[in-house]
Amino acid sequence: MAEALTAETILGTTEDVLRRFGPAKATVVDVARALGVSHGSVYRHFPTKAALREAVTQRWLDRAHAGLAELVTAPTDPPQRLRDWLAALFEAKRRKALGDPELFATFQVLVAENSRVVAAHVAAMVDDLTEIVRSGVDSGHFTTADPRRTARAVFHATARYHDPAHASDWSGPDADDAFDAVVSLLVAGLRTGA
Amino acid sequence: MAEALTAETILGTTEDVLRRFGPAKATVVDVARALGVSHGSVYRHFPTKAALREAVTQRWLDRAHAGLAELVTAPTDPPQRLRDWLAALFEAKRRKALGDPELFATFQVLVAENSRVVAAHVAAMVDDLTEIVRSGVDSGHFTTADPRRTARAVFHATARYHDPAHASDWSGPDADDAFDAVVSLLVAGLRTGA
Repeated sequence: MAEALTAETILGTTEDVLRRFGPAKATVVDVARALGVSHGSVYRHFPTKAALREAVTQRWLDRAHAGLAELVTAPTDPPQRLRDWLAALFEAKRRKALGDPELFATFQVLVAENSRVVAAHVAAMVDDLTEIVRSGVDSGHFTTADPRRTARAVFHATARYHDPAHASDWSGPDADDAFDAVVSLLVAGLRTGA
Repeated sequence: MAEALTAETILGTTEDVLRRFGPAKATVVDVARALGVSHGSVYRHFPTKAALREAVTQRWLDRAHAGLAELVTAPTDPPQRLRDWLAALFEAKRRKALGDPELFATFQVLVAENSRVVAAHVAAMVDDLTEIVRSGVDSGHFTTADPRRTARAVFHATARYHDPAHASDWSGPDADDAFDAVVSLLVAGLRTGA
């Protein structure tokens, strides 16, 4: 068993254990027991409980990002690409929040204690947006003197549709129309230039 | 003493009592004791504890709004008026959050339990923004087919700068520049039309 033990297997089981015991109670020993290995085997991959929690948080955040990266270079024009990317992010976050609220709540605790991982996740999002804004400037669709600053503004202006603090607003009947109104305003602003 | 007892006096004292005892422990009896009156005197103005808590929440939210209403009809052009209104809201919220973090945290509890009052507060904000957007359409500065929908989008797109869930982002060294980038993008979007 121990020879098949990969970091990915440990992380999958850690998520199960977190779901079952909650973020306050879950321990490395619980994870090892669920895997049928010694806790030393787990520590060989993740030297501390904090390292394990950080890695499982990163995996959770990366999953929301999966699929977004390829939208950055989709063959549509940059305004449409921006819309699609923002809609995919909103959809991914909403699916996680509404599809499995208990696991979502669990990960809010982990996210709060792993600010470094969150900062890297946000930076990756802003990198994606910067690339879309840049390609819009190149194609003549967008105007901005500072694509990164503008991309960050787009990310901040859509916080209501990706920041977990707003999850309770994601299920209302107006959520999609309200999202669309914000994105349309931002795309219009990108066309003129801020 | 009892004859001088106004609703405003009671609400001011309720805020002090909330600050001192915290939102979980503060009672109507505590408020009456602090005022030197019977609790019946308090109940004459506010028939239940819930009514008192609702009223004190409303007063707290109204205070953030004070001063904003007159900016709606300021003699500057609508784009500048929009910037000034949004900056004043951000400043008011930030002052409350950073100037008295304990009272701010207390009111987050009250805000969470008084969703009707919060909804009315948000509606008043969106009304202000709608009026500015409309006057911008009239003056030819802004383009939109639906001023209210667009005003709501402006409110949602600036959530990071007025929603208390984001208070931890308000003190960073980049906060003002990030705010400015968002507002500039929105004003540009309003010029073109979404």
